[in-house]
Amino acid sequence: MSKKFVNKAEEAVDDALFGLVSSNSNVKFHKSCRRVVHITDLNPSHHVSLIAGGGSGHEPYAAGYVGKGLLTAAIAGNVFASPPSRNVQAALEATRGEAGAILFVINYTGDRLNFGLAAERFNASGGTARVVTIADDVAIDSPNSKVGRRGLAGAVLTIKIAGAMAWEGKSLDEIYETSQKVVSSMGTLGVSLYTGSLPGKNRETELPDDQIEVGLGIHGEPGKFRAQFGSANRIVHSLLDTLRSKMEMREGEKFVVLVNNLGSVSQLEMNIVNGEVLRYFEDHKIGITRFFSGIYMTSLDGHGVSVTILRADDSMLQYLDAPAAAPGWIPALSVQKCVDHQEISDSSSQGDLISEIPASGVTVNAQLVEACVGGVVDAMLESEKHLNQLDAYAGDGDCGSTFAGAAEAIRKQTSGLNYTHPETLLKQLSIIFEQTVGGTSGALYALMFSSAAQSFAQRSQRGEKIDRTSILEALDKANRAVQKYGGARVGDRTMVDGLDAMVEELRKGFSGNEESLDAIFEAAVKASEKAAKATASQTATVGRASYTSSEAQTKPDAGATAISLWLRACWTAYKSEK
Amino acid sequence: MSKKFVNKAEEAVDDALFGLVSSNSNVKFHKSCRRVVHITDLNPSHHVSLIAGGGSGHEPYAAGYVGKGLLTAAIAGNVFASPPSRNVQAALEATRGEAGAILFVINYTGDRLNFGLAAERFNASGGTARVVTIADDVAIDSPNSKVGRRGLAGAVLTIKIAGAMAWEGKSLDEIYETSQKVVSSMGTLGVSLYTGSLPGKNRETELPDDQIEVGLGIHGEPGKFRAQFGSANRIVHSLLDTLRSKMEMREGEKFVVLVNNLGSVSQLEMNIVNGEVLRYFEDHKIGITRFFSGIYMTSLDGHGVSVTILRADDSMLQYLDAPAAAPGWIPALSVQKCVDHQEISDSSSQGDLISEIPASGVTVNAQLVEACVGGVVDAMLESEKHLNQLDAYAGDGDCGSTFAGAAEAIRKQTSGLNYTHPETLLKQLSIIFEQTVGGTSGALYALMFSSAAQSFAQRSQRGEKIDRTSILEALDKANRAVQKYGGARVGDRTMVDGLDAMVEELRKGFSGNEESLDAIFEAAVKASEKAAKATASQTATVGRASYTSSEAQTKPDAGATAISLWLRACWTAYKSEK
Repeated sequence: MSKKFVNKAEEAVDDALFGLVSSNSNVKFHKSCRRVVHITDLNPSHHVSLIAGGGSGHEPYAAGYVGKGLLTAAIAGNVFASPPSRNVQAALEATRGEAGAILFVINYTGDRLNFGLAAERFNASGGTARVVTIADDVAIDSPNSKVGRRGLAGAVLTIKIAGAMAWEGKSLDEIYETSQKVVSSMGTLGVSLYTGSLPGKNRETELPDDQIEVGLGIHGEPGKFRAQFGSANRIVHSLLDTLRSKMEMREGEKFVVLVNNLGSVSQLEMNIVNGEVLRYFEDHKIGITRFFSGIYMTSLDGHGVSVTILRADDSMLQYLDAPAAAPGWIPALSVQKCVDHQEISDSSSQGDLISEIPASGVTVNAQLVEACVGGVVDAMLESEKHLNQLDAYAGDGDCGSTFAGAAEAIRKQTSGLNYTHPETLLKQLSIIFEQTVGGTSGALYALMFSSAAQSFAQRSQRGEKIDRTSILEALDKANRAVQKYGGARVGDRTMVDGLDAMVEELRKGFSGNEESLDAIFEAAVKASEKAAKATASQTATVGRASYTSSEAQTKPDAGATAISLWLRACWTAYKSEK
Repeated sequence: MSKKFVNKAEEAVDDALFGLVSSNSNVKFHKSCRRVVHITDLNPSHHVSLIAGGGSGHEPYAAGYVGKGLLTAAIAGNVFASPPSRNVQAALEATRGEAGAILFVINYTGDRLNFGLAAERFNASGGTARVVTIADDVAIDSPNSKVGRRGLAGAVLTIKIAGAMAWEGKSLDEIYETSQKVVSSMGTLGVSLYTGSLPGKNRETELPDDQIEVGLGIHGEPGKFRAQFGSANRIVHSLLDTLRSKMEMREGEKFVVLVNNLGSVSQLEMNIVNGEVLRYFEDHKIGITRFFSGIYMTSLDGHGVSVTILRADDSMLQYLDAPAAAPGWIPALSVQKCVDHQEISDSSSQGDLISEIPASGVTVNAQLVEACVGGVVDAMLESEKHLNQLDAYAGDGDCGSTFAGAAEAIRKQTSGLNYTHPETLLKQLSIIFEQTVGGTSGALYALMFSSAAQSFAQRSQRGEKIDRTSILEALDKANRAVQKYGGARVGDRTMVDGLDAMVEELRKGFSGNEESLDAIFEAAVKASEKAAKATASQTATVGRASYTSSEAQTKPDAGATAISLWLRACWTAYKSEK
């Protein structure tokens, strides 16, 4: 069973309506029917009553659109099930007035039956109700279909236009005719990566990982066909190609466009989809008069979108722009000419910056340094998966990928890197980590390299050559910078553990003066590795891992492990090259 | 890999910003940094610049809040990764003015590092930038934590208040002080059923089906602890108990409340959560001055919510109410006293209606009728799973559950059902199906029973007794009503196939006058079963199944199968009872 924020599944609709009404003082429950909500201040003798509804699971449709400038009342059926006609009648009776009423029906058999029955009974009792059937799904267009198109998100544009007309005091005939015109001037097509699931249930049908549903409705039913999953660009273009053909859209024409989130598409993705839609229209020289995007009519937590196209006249646009006060209504966005953002870099050109750094400081054996850098880069690429796994236990699982990205960036810069001057090289690496990697690791490594570079610069200013203590001095400065800006100390389960152990063991080795350089470095790298392993039993108090429960932390810290891996790789490369 | 609407995963952030800028003419890209967006009409000499940002994946935060009355600029890092400090510097430089700037930093190490570094460099170059660190997560409160609380959705309330102040022309000092006061007056706690997943990846950590994360951040990292999954009521109450304690909320106090959708919670669930939050405050006699609910700061497609509590003074409320023009900003809802909706039935009391139907028409052997009804009810319960499975191939998979619900409703009414008068019983069943079942099946079955009842009524008015043709007449009337209102004909792959076959075979049997009653009925039920099975090779042209691809339809239709099952069950019960 998929987890959801519900109490009893069979009470989900009632509980949701309770939340809606409690957070909207402009609506109230029908006095004797808790599946009908209507505006608090009924003004039935002056305005045409506009009523919509159907099965629940499409929130904010329909109850979220009850309010000034939109619906007068809404009826909520069970999830994905048409409400009983008696409840439709209750909504008609509660909002009964001289101006008459319009029922907006999404074209599904159940709703046709129940709303139609209610309208007939209401009219037989002296009322005046008309039925507008929303049928905008262009996926259903076969000539042998007796039922016609389904109703989809086009319903929202229809009730917005009708709502503005009703609040302006337009007559039943005028609103009915305009509504019919809206319905016949629009088309909608939906596409889904994952269908929604009902409270208390799993999805009844599962889409394979490489397929998407095209031309689906809003009840989790299969689509018109399944297509290969692809990029957002391909999915959106294919969807709009179909819409363009079905709606006979031509270059130079202008349309209202509504991009509807079927329930659980992330905002990052919605922005991407919006961009693809806008680019498509620009590429095809088709204008957009109004652009709507958001959660208008859902299929529970369906991971999909639909696009609705309306060939609107000026009065329709005016009614779409009219103010409306209902929590579900999201006004149009303001489109501007697409900027070709590929032309803008994500900061001042990094390549230039790197080659612009003047060579400075002492010089060293370039071949040896290049071998060391190469060894670390190889290690970064090889350990991506391992570090991601370690990071996933306590963080967001991207530590390895972050370093692999850095390695790629270093490789791309290889020709521009200055292996002769360690000070310059460290400044270059600092920029690469800051700009390409980003994130905490990027910033901390950038700080490390900058500090180490300063160490070489100061040494050079003092006229000192590079000797065996230069490495210690540089590592020590890097270690202190990381602790200062990052806030971590030894034992906090961070990269500091791996770095500090190396520095302290080196210091001990050099002060002892008893061992060979090789033995001292080997011992220092081993100390780093040991410290990194020991983080498995430590509790994080800083860094991302500090926010997570200590039960999640039974593996070595990814950051500490990483630095010990780089130190080992560097030392191995140094030994084999020297 | 979880499917998403993205192109290349590594270009997701750029593509999303492209969509955002293209659909918002009030903002533009920084001239040389595509990860910085700022308002189009910069007015730097008069207003304090407000800048926020951090890793992407939290949309609409932060770029969705750039606009009048909110942010001046925003910086977007890679997904869940802090932006490089150079980009923060670019935002500061682009919006540089005499009034100074405030950087809003979500309290994560990377952002502290990069934003702090940028602010220091900006100030060293003659600018005036201050840093406000948002740290509202009450889950992180242990005294041995060196990093303090994380920043969560409280950031949105902070930038809204600061934004309104900046647009009113308040000074840097005033805005900075108020912002600090807001930060120290609020707390947030999050809870998640499923964590979000990064573009191009699966979730790195999976929550067991019976557990939830409590006290989680917005980067998919594990929460403070895991708790047992339970009802929305229990989850929300437990979350608010913690917040109430941490924030020392007392009876009679009033608070600003923000319920934040972490990305993929359906609107149905959000309404339920809102209701639970509002009920909790009412039960604990704690007031709500402003109630916000929606998608404010996400964790990609995280299926969770956070609740933010702010102890706001009057000026903060005034700034929260001030107009703001940014696509991410959703104004406060209007709370009203919770209605105890449990007191309202979902229509006029059904029990009363059923017992109110006067006994009319001919009388029959009650024991026999009760046995038939009982047999059908048993069959409805037993075939739930089978019918759901059949329905899932072409519809929404709830056909069996719908009938099982009807069976339960009939059982509950057993004492009130009139088994002596078939006309009355059919009217009662019509009401039960219409009101309790709802949906297409409910409406069609209600129509069937009503029509059949009319058949008995007319017979009674003509003074005719019940004979063997009464059943045929009633079934025939029911069959015609379903075809009239539902639009289906024989061969359309619906319940009509199962019903019509029975009627026609009965008619043939009676007109032939050659067979025994038993043989005629047995043949008719068999004809219904055969017709139901034959729907497997038919193509639907009406009903929900008509919207789906014909490849999905290789099994018998659930509705046709259902009716043949009921006819068989009724006939079996009749034979064994008579």
